[in-house]
Amino acid sequence: MNISDTFIPTLREVPADAVIISHRLMFRAAMIRKLSNGLFAYLPLGLRSLRKLERIVREEMDAIGSLEIKPTVIVPGELWKESGRWDAYGDALMRIKNRLGADFVVSPTAEEAFTALVRDELSSYRQLPLSLYQINTKYRDEIRPRYGVMRGREFIMKDAYSFHTDDASLDETYQKMGKAYRRIFKRCSLTVIPVQADSGAMGGSGSEEIMVESEIGDNTLLLCKTGDYAANVEKAACKPDYAPVAQGEAALAAAAKTPPMEKIDTPNVKTIEELCAFLKSDAKVFIKTLIYRARNAEIDIPGDKTFFACAIRGDLDINETKLTALLKAAEVELAGEADVERITRAPVGFAGPVGLEGIPLIVDHSVTAINDGICGGLAKDLHLKHVAWGRDFNAALAADIRTVKAGDACPSCGAELYEKKGNELGHIFKLGDKYTAAMDVTYLDENGKTCVPIMGCYGLGLDRTLASIIEEHHDDDGIIWPMSVAPYHVIIIPIKYEGAVKQTTDTLVSALEKAGIEVLLDNRDERPGVKFKDADLIGIPLRIVIGEKNLAGDEPKVELKQRREKENRLVKVSQAANEISSIVITELADLNEG
Amino acid sequence: MNISDTFIPTLREVPADAVIISHRLMFRAAMIRKLSNGLFAYLPLGLRSLRKLERIVREEMDAIGSLEIKPTVIVPGELWKESGRWDAYGDALMRIKNRLGADFVVSPTAEEAFTALVRDELSSYRQLPLSLYQINTKYRDEIRPRYGVMRGREFIMKDAYSFHTDDASLDETYQKMGKAYRRIFKRCSLTVIPVQADSGAMGGSGSEEIMVESEIGDNTLLLCKTGDYAANVEKAACKPDYAPVAQGEAALAAAAKTPPMEKIDTPNVKTIEELCAFLKSDAKVFIKTLIYRARNAEIDIPGDKTFFACAIRGDLDINETKLTALLKAAEVELAGEADVERITRAPVGFAGPVGLEGIPLIVDHSVTAINDGICGGLAKDLHLKHVAWGRDFNAALAADIRTVKAGDACPSCGAELYEKKGNELGHIFKLGDKYTAAMDVTYLDENGKTCVPIMGCYGLGLDRTLASIIEEHHDDDGIIWPMSVAPYHVIIIPIKYEGAVKQTTDTLVSALEKAGIEVLLDNRDERPGVKFKDADLIGIPLRIVIGEKNLAGDEPKVELKQRREKENRLVKVSQAANEISSIVITELADLNEG
Repeated sequence: MNISDTFIPTLREVPADAVIISHRLMFRAAMIRKLSNGLFAYLPLGLRSLRKLERIVREEMDAIGSLEIKPTVIVPGELWKESGRWDAYGDALMRIKNRLGADFVVSPTAEEAFTALVRDELSSYRQLPLSLYQINTKYRDEIRPRYGVMRGREFIMKDAYSFHTDDASLDETYQKMGKAYRRIFKRCSLTVIPVQADSGAMGGSGSEEIMVESEIGDNTLLLCKTGDYAANVEKAACKPDYAPVAQGEAALAAAAKTPPMEKIDTPNVKTIEELCAFLKSDAKVFIKTLIYRARNAEIDIPGDKTFFACAIRGDLDINETKLTALLKAAEVELAGEADVERITRAPVGFAGPVGLEGIPLIVDHSVTAINDGICGGLAKDLHLKHVAWGRDFNAALAADIRTVKAGDACPSCGAELYEKKGNELGHIFKLGDKYTAAMDVTYLDENGKTCVPIMGCYGLGLDRTLASIIEEHHDDDGIIWPMSVAPYHVIIIPIKYEGAVKQTTDTLVSALEKAGIEVLLDNRDERPGVKFKDADLIGIPLRIVIGEKNLAGDEPKVELKQRREKENRLVKVSQAANEISSIVITELADLNEG
Repeated sequence: MNISDTFIPTLREVPADAVIISHRLMFRAAMIRKLSNGLFAYLPLGLRSLRKLERIVREEMDAIGSLEIKPTVIVPGELWKESGRWDAYGDALMRIKNRLGADFVVSPTAEEAFTALVRDELSSYRQLPLSLYQINTKYRDEIRPRYGVMRGREFIMKDAYSFHTDDASLDETYQKMGKAYRRIFKRCSLTVIPVQADSGAMGGSGSEEIMVESEIGDNTLLLCKTGDYAANVEKAACKPDYAPVAQGEAALAAAAKTPPMEKIDTPNVKTIEELCAFLKSDAKVFIKTLIYRARNAEIDIPGDKTFFACAIRGDLDINETKLTALLKAAEVELAGEADVERITRAPVGFAGPVGLEGIPLIVDHSVTAINDGICGGLAKDLHLKHVAWGRDFNAALAADIRTVKAGDACPSCGAELYEKKGNELGHIFKLGDKYTAAMDVTYLDENGKTCVPIMGCYGLGLDRTLASIIEEHHDDDGIIWPMSVAPYHVIIIPIKYEGAVKQTTDTLVSALEKAGIEVLLDNRDERPGVKFKDADLIGIPLRIVIGEKNLAGDEPKVELKQRREKENRLVKVSQAANEISSIVITELADLNEG
């Protein structure tokens, strides 16, 4: 392709809102242009890379037997009402009404559409497992789209959905997907971090996010220095720094030497920090109690299902995602002041587990190791000391609801965990029967019994994957494309496209194209410096410069430079096509292997 | 691909709303499923054909130097307000509001997005011509979607837009597009009828629709028996059956022998039919006058620009599309009763050209040949006779506003025209500066002068093209795919997939796949009859049946049948792979050539 025949309006400057490097480079390299906040058009160069990524994703999905289909982008709202997500999804769901008043959504994800399609076709267990995917336009009505295509409103997602008779079958597909994702990112030369992720009310280990490290990442990851553990903070566990959970007799025995509980007058002392200072104690001896309000909690414990008291050791924080999953709730939030005062019969700041009535108490495991603690006294300016778990109070449930932090111990090996910020590129998830049950999908098993299939879902964002490749592969001059997703394999720059230079150029281009190598020919009448700058900016992996000087003499040569290297070298014209093809083929093979 | 590993839930019956053959067959062959009215999901088999069609379209666009880009599906409403189409487009435009109250549209077409993108990049005439396209999701909020993907709400369209400095450059791209479209449909083995089409206010010959004949077509085409003329009725002209347009002296001369105009009392006679009966005259001597109301007419004639009197010979009908184009209006409609009575100073039914004041009169050319006619008298129960054009009345404009009908004379050769119903698959159109002027797109020409580029636009509906291929290529048993868009080239049916049959089958499948032939293997444990029926239904061009009987003996054979032929024949196993490959390659080459 001649540069003059395509459309690559490169730029020196970019708009002020392009703050991250991939956004800046995609603009400058004329890969994308902005139509509106969060809406980007791919220009020819960007689309070539996007299509290559799409092909990689498609090949890997096909290789694990997932079948491509194409539902619509606009999906009937009825299906979302059936699943319950019409109400539950939140404002990022683009709900629209057509001229007849019917409801539709612009799909942000497609559990409903796939489930509805399968529902109509499924009759027998013999049809399962079934794994389907699409690579299609998605839309999220982001309130603050940012960072270019990294967090746009409209984007391309590969989303797969699988249907199964049992957990073993679901797990098999889930594992295959995980491997396919690793291959996809490997083929893009992208360093990813697979992490355990929140799996909502489902529980279990059936949720993995594939993250890429990023300063602007909106996820916090906890990673073990030894590499044997990685989890999203929403899910991360740690090895406890206290004795194991004590219940009943064991709890009483642990509290055997604790003096009887005593009231302490604590005028105007409300926060843990204030208490520590006031009592000259370490936060670890405090029992911090918070009142939460949950939406649609389905946890099976007696009592109120709207308000929950949650207690944790004073130096730790409650993880609301873990709590939401534990309660099987749609959402949790801290209760308002009025509710707290009503429930604790005291101003905010004096909640405590001892004598709290009317709502269930849930404690983090850390609380079960406290046998001589301090807590709020359920009255203004009152705290209690010498409080012992199992002696002075009990809970409806003890569970892990702790936010793990850098410095906590790896749950696997005990080594120190550290934190990174990450962006999610993919997510594989065991859904269970959430959608199939809600949408009434059934099949007959071997015995003719009506059963509900279980599902997995597997998403992968193509635009942000592309942007992440640039984040990882660039230098000050521009993008450094891995061969597999480069818009072209080779850029050829004739110093002056005429005479012998033109002849050599044309012969080389033609030989390379015959060999299946994608060539971009900079046939513009521009200064070499301009051409070199553009070549570096758009990041084509191989650059060939053809000039009169190197063509003169007995052994005419051209200059070959790999984008990722500083140095160039001379290659004989007679060997150039072979040499270039060989580099391209080798790099593609290296990326594709394994 | 093994049938057991894909997802082809064929059906015997289809929903009652599937009335046309392509809709029925796409359902039965498990190519598509309905998500909602006008919203269809492509299943694996349908998507394979759609992707092949997409590839053909892409190749032909690339071949003429159009560059693929990808704007978004959801486009800012601001752009549509700039172009004026936010208001003008009508209810089929899906207008939506996001959570921040901003307006968007789900693109039904993308003039605005492409124009906006080019506007931001264009500075010099050196960048022109520029031809860009996308193959992307479109949406029309059809009030009555019908006929499956032939008239769905969401669909895939290839739409290209070109930008030029002058007419010659636009015409060059326009001609290239026309040729590319012919090649695309040729490669799909689709018989199309390119017709001249309405080009709106632009005029000229810059609008061609590529039609496919269809009983349910929503276009009427006028075709010449000699094949030298084809036009949409909206645009069609004919050779007049009257003397050429007479003006001034010529008109007076033609009326020389006409008696003076006379009033006739015509109590309760209003329609042309009633008049013919009452006066025992032929409709050809009447001058039929209708009052139209136009929206945003921009025609440059003196007087009112809202109401127009239009006269035509009594046996002919006014073509409102031609009239709209002539008036450069957004829309025309017959004026309401009150307006007619006010303007003609008479009840409806007595409008006439003589003495009509206050609004411009436009006459069809046919009126200029009437030198002794009858017309309404602008008063209740009054008509006029011996009315002569040029003597008793004149018009602001004489033009072709006639609806051409079957039986009229071809404007090119004079032979009789006949009618067909057609569905539009593609449309190529010279837009002029409609969008570039409205959206303020400029470039500097060679002399540094600021100019507005002109545009062409070129649409092609992929879903309805696919459906139309099926309409043309099927029989009672199912689809008969042309090789180029068949989901697979060959279907192999082992009678019983075991022993020697399995061995032969596997060897053949592997040899074919190595040769790049796409094979669907019916490895199901079903009766041969079921497999044959499914193979016919899904329409794979080549069928190979492998059974024990034909494998026995010295020269083991398999049965080869082309889907479009009745007879099958035996092919030696040793030659089967070559024979099949050769048929596939030859058919593809035949379709691709030219």
